[in-house]
Amino acid sequence: MNTELCMIHPSSDSSPSGGERLWSDDDKPGLRLMVEAVQKHGALAGCELTHQGALAGNRMSRERPMSASPRPAMDVPAVVRQMDKQDIADVRKWHRAAARRARDIGFDIVYVYASHMMGLPGDFITERVNRRTDEYGGVIANRARLLRELIEDTKEEIGSDCAVAVRFGVDEGLGDAGYTCSGDGRRVVEMLAELPDLWDVNVQNINLDVMTARFADEGWQEPFTAFVKQVTTKPVVAVGRYTSPDRMVSLIKKGLVDLIGAARPSIADPFLPKKIEDGRIEDIRECIGCNTCLSMQYMGGGIRCTQNPTTGEEWRRGWHPERVPGKGSDARVLVVGGGPAGLEAALTLGRRGYSVALSESNTFLGGRSVLESTLPGLSTYRRVADYRIGQINKLPNIDVYLGSEIQCSDVDDFDFSTILVATGARWDRDGIGKANRFPVKGWDQRHVITPDDVLSGQTIKGPVVINDDEGYYLGGVIAEKLAKQGLDVTLLTPDPEPSPLLKYTSEREVVHQALLSLDVKLVTARRLVEVGTDEVEAHCIYTGKEIRLPAATVVMICLRSPNDGLLRDLRKTVADNPPHFTVHAVGDCYAPGTIADAVHSGHRFGREIDQTPIGDINYLIERPLVREADNWDQFVGTR
Amino acid sequence: MNTELCMIHPSSDSSPSGGERLWSDDDKPGLRLMVEAVQKHGALAGCELTHQGALAGNRMSRERPMSASPRPAMDVPAVVRQMDKQDIADVRKWHRAAARRARDIGFDIVYVYASHMMGLPGDFITERVNRRTDEYGGVIANRARLLRELIEDTKEEIGSDCAVAVRFGVDEGLGDAGYTCSGDGRRVVEMLAELPDLWDVNVQNINLDVMTARFADEGWQEPFTAFVKQVTTKPVVAVGRYTSPDRMVSLIKKGLVDLIGAARPSIADPFLPKKIEDGRIEDIRECIGCNTCLSMQYMGGGIRCTQNPTTGEEWRRGWHPERVPGKGSDARVLVVGGGPAGLEAALTLGRRGYSVALSESNTFLGGRSVLESTLPGLSTYRRVADYRIGQINKLPNIDVYLGSEIQCSDVDDFDFSTILVATGARWDRDGIGKANRFPVKGWDQRHVITPDDVLSGQTIKGPVVINDDEGYYLGGVIAEKLAKQGLDVTLLTPDPEPSPLLKYTSEREVVHQALLSLDVKLVTARRLVEVGTDEVEAHCIYTGKEIRLPAATVVMICLRSPNDGLLRDLRKTVADNPPHFTVHAVGDCYAPGTIADAVHSGHRFGREIDQTPIGDINYLIERPLVREADNWDQFVGTR
Repeated sequence: MNTELCMIHPSSDSSPSGGERLWSDDDKPGLRLMVEAVQKHGALAGCELTHQGALAGNRMSRERPMSASPRPAMDVPAVVRQMDKQDIADVRKWHRAAARRARDIGFDIVYVYASHMMGLPGDFITERVNRRTDEYGGVIANRARLLRELIEDTKEEIGSDCAVAVRFGVDEGLGDAGYTCSGDGRRVVEMLAELPDLWDVNVQNINLDVMTARFADEGWQEPFTAFVKQVTTKPVVAVGRYTSPDRMVSLIKKGLVDLIGAARPSIADPFLPKKIEDGRIEDIRECIGCNTCLSMQYMGGGIRCTQNPTTGEEWRRGWHPERVPGKGSDARVLVVGGGPAGLEAALTLGRRGYSVALSESNTFLGGRSVLESTLPGLSTYRRVADYRIGQINKLPNIDVYLGSEIQCSDVDDFDFSTILVATGARWDRDGIGKANRFPVKGWDQRHVITPDDVLSGQTIKGPVVINDDEGYYLGGVIAEKLAKQGLDVTLLTPDPEPSPLLKYTSEREVVHQALLSLDVKLVTARRLVEVGTDEVEAHCIYTGKEIRLPAATVVMICLRSPNDGLLRDLRKTVADNPPHFTVHAVGDCYAPGTIADAVHSGHRFGREIDQTPIGDINYLIERPLVREADNWDQFVGTR
Repeated sequence: MNTELCMIHPSSDSSPSGGERLWSDDDKPGLRLMVEAVQKHGALAGCELTHQGALAGNRMSRERPMSASPRPAMDVPAVVRQMDKQDIADVRKWHRAAARRARDIGFDIVYVYASHMMGLPGDFITERVNRRTDEYGGVIANRARLLRELIEDTKEEIGSDCAVAVRFGVDEGLGDAGYTCSGDGRRVVEMLAELPDLWDVNVQNINLDVMTARFADEGWQEPFTAFVKQVTTKPVVAVGRYTSPDRMVSLIKKGLVDLIGAARPSIADPFLPKKIEDGRIEDIRECIGCNTCLSMQYMGGGIRCTQNPTTGEEWRRGWHPERVPGKGSDARVLVVGGGPAGLEAALTLGRRGYSVALSESNTFLGGRSVLESTLPGLSTYRRVADYRIGQINKLPNIDVYLGSEIQCSDVDDFDFSTILVATGARWDRDGIGKANRFPVKGWDQRHVITPDDVLSGQTIKGPVVINDDEGYYLGGVIAEKLAKQGLDVTLLTPDPEPSPLLKYTSEREVVHQALLSLDVKLVTARRLVEVGTDEVEAHCIYTGKEIRLPAATVVMICLRSPNDGLLRDLRKTVADNPPHFTVHAVGDCYAPGTIADAVHSGHRFGREIDQTPIGDINYLIERPLVREADNWDQFVGTR
């Protein structure tokens, strides 16, 4: 169980994003809590000591980023300064000090981090960055010198107390444009083969290493990392978004790795190893590879997960990934709607011991997670339904009714004390959204359709204009689907580029590339103004300049409206004549959002029913210590 | 002295960005520190109570954003849900509770916030959002109902203890596309004229209200807000990035406002009112209107300022905006280079009492801040030099030498104990940067120039290709300058849009619009591959597809290299034969960055010389309380 990247010095300051810090002894207490929690369960605690070098934002420390050679800084107009010999000596000294702190805290494993282009040693190793002419540049032995030194320093400093691991990206994943696992990547491992106690290997470029299921299958890094076991006797761990125990066993049996690294799969199911150990394979909550976890880190929020609604809520709301409190009443709950929110609510309520009826108007459970799983690259989305259906089927206190359309008048006849409406949402056709505050002229024609029509299998005639006002994944995915059918497809968007919100999932560039390679025409920074019978009119959002695009079909991807007819009727009934039940809403029916939002919403309802809130807001907030404030007046101006 | 936006409830959660919070009594202690500090100096403390509605990110609370009518959420793929009557009642209840808390803390003024499209009432007032058909939609009296209710609630709740202010954007600044100060904006003020105790008025759209000096002059909001005094007897405060006391006095004399609001000018100089009161007009450190303050908030870092290096460092490093500690030795300091870093270092050292010589090779002081101030829209950048030169001239212990080129061999003859090199940086011509890791073919031709050549007044022949690999302001500004000279200009960039880093200064859209209106051709997502004699070749970064653009001149905006010849020579001297002086570097010469970076760097050197560091890192860090962790194991799983 490793920390995230743990920064060794203020010149590698990742604030305000996640990540840990061992800059001073004051950083020890927080990490000690983690170490104690990990070791209590018999696991080893690892600390991924890192100097981010060029990628350090240094928002708080205001130190200047540095690296092997000058290069652009990350997302700020600055040049990364070239490290001189003193800088290299300093980094080694800081790394030693951080290693001692990690050892003193009680970590079992201390890392030297050289992957994801987030560790200084990676910048030294690649000729894409390193243009030095001293003993740290030129031949690979020179470019790997800093990595070697950091490993040697760490071994010397704490090697008798802790294992020293290296995380190394063995291939940049850029073909000839970077170093490869048959070239310099391999040579580095060969040179340092027996030096560390553990090799933790992956692909250097983070956007390639963390690819979503849409663009890469489980274990896609294997061709890159497979060689490592051949050149070292030390144990090797590799990642690959592995969720299948069979696949994991096969990797180990084939001698490709000794240990399976699993970050995203463990976010989706922290009990993954325990469930494998217990043979409870069908209970594994499989990662769908959507990178919602990563996106929230990039957005600056706490981590979250589509599959696991307790992610990030363990401390904040006291939610355990596997345990729920017992039921708080004898409420009998009717859940209307078996999409992601309804399934999760029913499951959570069922686990707590409530008597639950789950009613679904379709003949299948899963709602949008199942429908969208038929689109290119999204097959894993089905796991959201599969896991929950499997678990629900094990619980005797949940009854499922398929093909069952509930009317308000039905409910009064039932003996439910709680009605939970989870009837989802539908895509709007009128074009109101980011670019248009009023309905788009001509929207109300038969050839104007929505993603719901695409998902229902409607036959579509080209040329197609997809008006993607949302900027998330569906616009690009539908473009891909239709282009693969041979249709002429244009993606029209008011944004400066397609799918801008996918910058948070590391998919922005790969989507752009995929669409161009499918000959999808991209028309950006344009607002759809009018739909004609066989063309659309759009205006440049900056100049108003008009363009026309041929369109036999227009796919509108703008806002969604809750399917809240039943909810409104029930609320009216409750208001008019207080009945024997209460009414609630979760998921898209409450507010259309992501699948992760829907699952969280359903889970939260299941957790919070019959619970007394704690304090004003029912969760914990980290609050900064303000003890220094007392002396502030005396302090300021003296420095 | 107001808080920033102070959120009233978890459904308006601005984490992890700045902003305050009064969700519960636990939020009181932090704000009480602020109130005490403000009142100690005889000022009134105001609390800007806000519910952000649609714009709430709710990263921590995971509540769903809500507003008058459905609309897209901010930067996430979700729909803002429409508030029902219960939601409106809830918001009013939360606002009352927050007002009580603010009163209990000791605030003198409590706000109802309805501006910057960041307060729910603004969404209700504008027909761009409000499509309701109930008593909160339709005619303006209905759309302003929530604002009226919140003011009435607040008056009733705490009106006998505190003044109740309203911050209202009287015009959306969007012409006919939004409400205007001659239409609904005026009517709202008329309807509610005597209800609050103070009107704090501005422009609703934050991107328009906070425009940089590049696009709007001091006081540009006056035409919008001028009417307010005519329709209310209550005091009126308005903003306008005012830095000129004469202008302020004239506004008040003309009866346009009673009080001047100043956020950015007070960030640049927190002693602005005090200096006016004391008649020390020439000591005012004038805001340059660059929005560096705002950009760091958007980036998630602490606030910072180009003009005021102590911004955000008051608590962290103990830096007072006006006071410095006395000198710590009798060091005599030679500062080589009179750009932003050198000026600030010399000034800070001089104030501390050191004997300083400031040497500048040019015949003027100010470096890039003066050179760039000649470019379109950047005239205020000169203030960086003007303020410092004015202050330096007052200090007898700083000697300035212009037109003085210092060589390493000179230094040994001088009697300085400390040499500070602040010789700046120059733009590279080779094209290495974000898009190119190796020099661009053909870069070494006479018609390949850099911003330094443009700033030196070189005559430029069209057609011009500006290869903007940096993405900050210079690419767009130089395009504007050359286009206004009548040249044919193309801005080529590997980014998806021009000047992407200006999203952080709220200038992204306005720059894009300005360039298109000047007929600058925009070629995005292309990497410059080769410069020919009269054209350039560029490749699509996604597909590699080749294009050619005519170019008699190519302006390279990529990396910068430190002017560190002297620095290297001096360091070599020190290493070879330890002399009687120490050598240091600040600003672009240490690492090329923004002007704000350079000023901070110079200031830090001046502050820290001869000071003993505190602790390992010499500044304070907010650390979260972990007291709840003790009970964590018992807590998790019970909720």
